[in-house]
Amino acid sequence: MLLTLHHLHKSQSERIIFLLEELALPYTLVLHDRNPTTAFAPDSLKSVHPAGTAPVLIDDLPNPCNERIVLAESGACVEYILAVYAADSNLVVKPGQAGYGDYLAWLHAANGTLQPTLGRLMMFARLGVPEDNPMHAFVSFKLEKTLKQMDAQLGRTGAYLAGKDFTAADAMCFFTLTTMRGFATVDLGAYGNVLGYLERVSGREAYKRTMEKGDQGLVPLLGARVEKFEFGAQKAKA
Amino acid sequence: MLLTLHHLHKSQSERIIFLLEELALPYTLVLHDRNPTTAFAPDSLKSVHPAGTAPVLIDDLPNPCNERIVLAESGACVEYILAVYAADSNLVVKPGQAGYGDYLAWLHAANGTLQPTLGRLMMFARLGVPEDNPMHAFVSFKLEKTLKQMDAQLGRTGAYLAGKDFTAADAMCFFTLTTMRGFATVDLGAYGNVLGYLERVSGREAYKRTMEKGDQGLVPLLGARVEKFEFGAQKAKA
Repeated sequence: MLLTLHHLHKSQSERIIFLLEELALPYTLVLHDRNPTTAFAPDSLKSVHPAGTAPVLIDDLPNPCNERIVLAESGACVEYILAVYAADSNLVVKPGQAGYGDYLAWLHAANGTLQPTLGRLMMFARLGVPEDNPMHAFVSFKLEKTLKQMDAQLGRTGAYLAGKDFTAADAMCFFTLTTMRGFATVDLGAYGNVLGYLERVSGREAYKRTMEKGDQGLVPLLGARVEKFEFGAQKAKA
Repeated sequence: MLLTLHHLHKSQSERIIFLLEELALPYTLVLHDRNPTTAFAPDSLKSVHPAGTAPVLIDDLPNPCNERIVLAESGACVEYILAVYAADSNLVVKPGQAGYGDYLAWLHAANGTLQPTLGRLMMFARLGVPEDNPMHAFVSFKLEKTLKQMDAQLGRTGAYLAGKDFTAADAMCFFTLTTMRGFATVDLGAYGNVLGYLERVSGREAYKRTMEKGDQGLVPLLGARVEKFEFGAQKAKA
């Protein structure tokens, strides 16, 4: 087991650092800076994986899969780590265990709904699409529905998305609710349970290590309203 | 085991029908029509799940999870079906089996990259964002990179995304390469292996049953270029 994780600052690979830190698995972290003007991924990631973005998780031989693993996609990296190195950890909920349905729902809502919805809002902001445009309103409504579900879910289950214990579903969703909001500001003021959840998760030692190792100096975006990240081109436009 | 699948015409729930048909699992299919003007999901889905969209997979009690399962998110539905009813089927590739890395990569690229990229292109088309806009160019470039990877992957592995056998990774990606292109037209002419793959998968008996049961009368969108779906509001604008 020789795990290497390529992390792009302020990106989805935060999820993988968080998961690895929660599991206390050994890994080598390679950091990449965003292009200071475009905010896109730098050329240094292209040599690692043709996707040219982060995360990229490498598991060199020898490993239990008997093939050198080079994975992009945060969902794939999470499933790999859980299946190969953490199947019996308490970050996984199995069929028949309490909260299994909730676990699956949020594990997949992260990339199925939350992340693409914020991604669209980020695009709208960059394109200058007004909030009352029907497409903008549709996407905002979709996000609102999801946040309402999450708020209600936390009201029912308590501390975390699948129950009283932190699971991989939390590791997947947390980036989108925090750092991703630096790209697409979303007001969470109406979601008290979600705001409490952000405070709770950010207090975990593994999350503190995640930010120290991955994005040192970045103050976690935990408030109802957060400031958008500034990059060269956007700053110049303002 | 009393599976009920809610399917919205021309939507991601096609993936779940396809998976269930490949596995020959018994299920009840409930069909929903899109709003003929907006092309959005109808009110009938809102009573099934607060997400108000498809798929929604219900597994009533008694079932192996000992809780009534009501899942949205195609990724969650797929993981549920595989974990609970098909863990030892040949639609799943396990750690240590050949093609595991490829399987994970494409199982998650479906919702991690392919679907949100086409979703953004659909939004750009509706908003009238020109192709030479930097945001449009960035998204098109991202999609191109992914399609190139897929084309190269199929060149290496042959018939399917994870090797010579059809797997859940194919069930996840196929909708985005076909029906989804009716919402965001993408020219696949440069990807010969992908076009061959579309023909190959569409010839599977389970896919034919999927289209017959889920979207009767819809001719699968297999060509390099396809026509965009027409809905009331869009038609009126043209």
